Amino acid sequence: MSTAISPLAPKHVPDMPAIAGVRLATAAAGIRYPGRTDVLLALFDEGTEVAGVFTRSKCPSAPVEWCRAQLKRGKSAKNLARALVVNSGNANAFTGKNGRAATKLTANIAAKAAGCKPAEVMLASTGVIGEPLDARKFGAVMDGLVAGARTGEFLAAAKAIMTTDTFPKVASATAKIGRVAVTVNGIAKGAGMIAPDMATMLSFVFTDAAIAAPALQALLKEGVADTFNAVTIDGDTSTSDTLLLFATGKAGNPRVARASDPRLRDFRKALHAVLANLAEQVARDGEGARKLVEVVVEGAVSNASARRIAMAVANSPLVKTAIAGEDANWGRVVMAVGKAGEPADRDRLAIWFGGIRVAHKGARDPSYDEAKVSAEMKKPEIYLKVALGLGKGRDRVLTCDLTKEYVAINGDYRS
Amino acid sequence: MSTAISPLAPKHVPDMPAIAGVRLATAAAGIRYPGRTDVLLALFDEGTEVAGVFTRSKCPSAPVEWCRAQLKRGKSAKNLARALVVNSGNANAFTGKNGRAATKLTANIAAKAAGCKPAEVMLASTGVIGEPLDARKFGAVMDGLVAGARTGEFLAAAKAIMTTDTFPKVASATAKIGRVAVTVNGIAKGAGMIAPDMATMLSFVFTDAAIAAPALQALLKEGVADTFNAVTIDGDTSTSDTLLLFATGKAGNPRVARASDPRLRDFRKALHAVLANLAEQVARDGEGARKLVEVVVEGAVSNASARRIAMAVANSPLVKTAIAGEDANWGRVVMAVGKAGEPADRDRLAIWFGGIRVAHKGARDPSYDEAKVSAEMKKPEIYLKVALGLGKGRDRVLTCDLTKEYVAINGDYRS
Repeated sequence: MSTAISPLAPKHVPDMPAIAGVRLATAAAGIRYPGRTDVLLALFDEGTEVAGVFTRSKCPSAPVEWCRAQLKRGKSAKNLARALVVNSGNANAFTGKNGRAATKLTANIAAKAAGCKPAEVMLASTGVIGEPLDARKFGAVMDGLVAGARTGEFLAAAKAIMTTDTFPKVASATAKIGRVAVTVNGIAKGAGMIAPDMATMLSFVFTDAAIAAPALQALLKEGVADTFNAVTIDGDTSTSDTLLLFATGKAGNPRVARASDPRLRDFRKALHAVLANLAEQVARDGEGARKLVEVVVEGAVSNASARRIAMAVANSPLVKTAIAGEDANWGRVVMAVGKAGEPADRDRLAIWFGGIRVAHKGARDPSYDEAKVSAEMKKPEIYLKVALGLGKGRDRVLTCDLTKEYVAINGDYRS
Repeated sequence: MSTAISPLAPKHVPDMPAIAGVRLATAAAGIRYPGRTDVLLALFDEGTEVAGVFTRSKCPSAPVEWCRAQLKRGKSAKNLARALVVNSGNANAFTGKNGRAATKLTANIAAKAAGCKPAEVMLASTGVIGEPLDARKFGAVMDGLVAGARTGEFLAAAKAIMTTDTFPKVASATAKIGRVAVTVNGIAKGAGMIAPDMATMLSFVFTDAAIAAPALQALLKEGVADTFNAVTIDGDTSTSDTLLLFATGKAGNPRVARASDPRLRDFRKALHAVLANLAEQVARDGEGARKLVEVVVEGAVSNASARRIAMAVANSPLVKTAIAGEDANWGRVVMAVGKAGEPADRDRLAIWFGGIRVAHKGARDPSYDEAKVSAEMKKPEIYLKVALGLGKGRDRVLTCDLTKEYVAINGDYRS
């Protein structure tokens, strides 16, 4: 499907410096369409540690189960990775025994070509669910991928994993661990099926820092809470969401064993910045999106309550269609707050669009000015705030509007 | 907004017999637009008992709070009603103190004209949220309504409460209580409004049976579980959903005091038939709907689990857009089952579209025939079954597809 680039795409693509110990290559393996780049191989130097977070779907894809199994195996020791194979075109989800066999075969093919154990190969797949994945196709391109892998190809890698994405998503940041400068690079694909708890979302983050796998895992878990887990396109959670973090250790800092180590303060910020940047790009490239919507809830009884209310607002089709229609329909925001099932007192509720308070103490704001609010709604970025006046719970979620293009993209996708 | 009648509208409108003790009248009070019928008055003979179920929104409308308060008052004694006032054009929701004052004034106006207590007046409003409702407008038409109220005007009443509904919704059934024949008539408005701030569901059911209010309440609560509570258009819950059941007692059967009384067996069935019929009509008239979708979940660990899974499927934008596109995209059904968070075992899952099993034991059905399934998807009524293979939990939910028209209706409404 060829779609115009989202009007919300970032204006600049950042430079993506090489990361020592990471080499990348892409190929067209004909997974679904002939001649389309559909495989990404990342090779990692010996000693690279890995952490991952995955979809909470009860019906996860075979590659998600594969990665979970490998990461679990190393729980008490190191989790090491030497290769990552990602394909688009086929999610290898709901493919039964065939799907498990396909992950095993893919890992074997990559391990043989890269000279490592199959357990050191991480896998991710995105695309159609339920179609058997012919993993033998990886065999035809794997030696070429290994031979052609080079450092610094992050933008090409981001392009290779796109599906209905309209632009490649990359982000980079630097940090110091002690006196050693380290780099964090990330790539992501997004588009549809994006909901909290990771959704149709693949993201791979690479660093040359030396950090132990359990610490990486803790940092990653902490980092997704208000980034990838706070983005929703349609409330639909994919079977395949995967976020992996690889640390090659080539920067030369003394290996940090624990996430609580104060030397990680700067790294933690850099990782968070990369995750937040990528998550926002995912929202900016929501299927059919014409507006980026930031939903802020404050004054809830707890942060968890604020999250549920923010998600109810961000996932409401009626709120999202109103925003698509540039309509400051705050009545629908009230509806969404009401349906969240969380403590809310109508008579304390206040709602803002942009900086303008439209509702106050359970009724329309006395100073409500339709023309001013309408002008706010014409902007490409919509800030929507709900204040509950009950407590100190706060949360922020990113989403996009719901347009006819979303329906067109998703009504015509398979055909 | 003038919209073509839904292609899913019932082919025949049933005869709606008069119900002794119920008189109806409609008028144009200029609530929002001049000259549009926007008020319904129902008058009930003395002794009419009433029960109601309402939205679970934490931010309910003022009329919902009014009705709840009146019904609560009579909890230990009789809940009596002599009048019902329904208006479209303004939901009197999120209108603060003004809203409470408006309900009080409306009830006073109706009580005075009908010669009853304000507490015996039930209220419902649908339309824009957050706009103050000028209840004085009811005063100008109330005496005329009372004077003109007649029996048997159910179709006119159903038309008066329509908003973006494309057809009036009526249903009728008869039953015997002992040897006495009784009638149950119902009217409803569905998902859509003249100014759809959201999809409000209003339904009013009338019977000449003599049944005590607490028994009516129990019957109604039981009756909505697999009818109105099993319909979803977009997962958005209105602040105003109201279902009231009035029993005039004029049929002459000995008053039945308890819902468990075996004499109510036939009545229970008739009431359920009316509720189920109206609920299905609401789904058939979902905004922009081109297909009626029946989602059946079986083999869940419990009925409650089956309900949550069925709702996750029925509310999934990706499932609904696929159905709009006549695409048997059962991968998205797997996704929706997975995201429901309920127990599910991918390798036991089976999925049917129409009578055709498309997925079996966690993979595409070996006998999958795309052409056959595609033909099934072209039908106006789509039957979607998920079998989990875990237990005996079962549920059924009705919904409709998600079309570009839904986005158009809800994106352009207020402007």
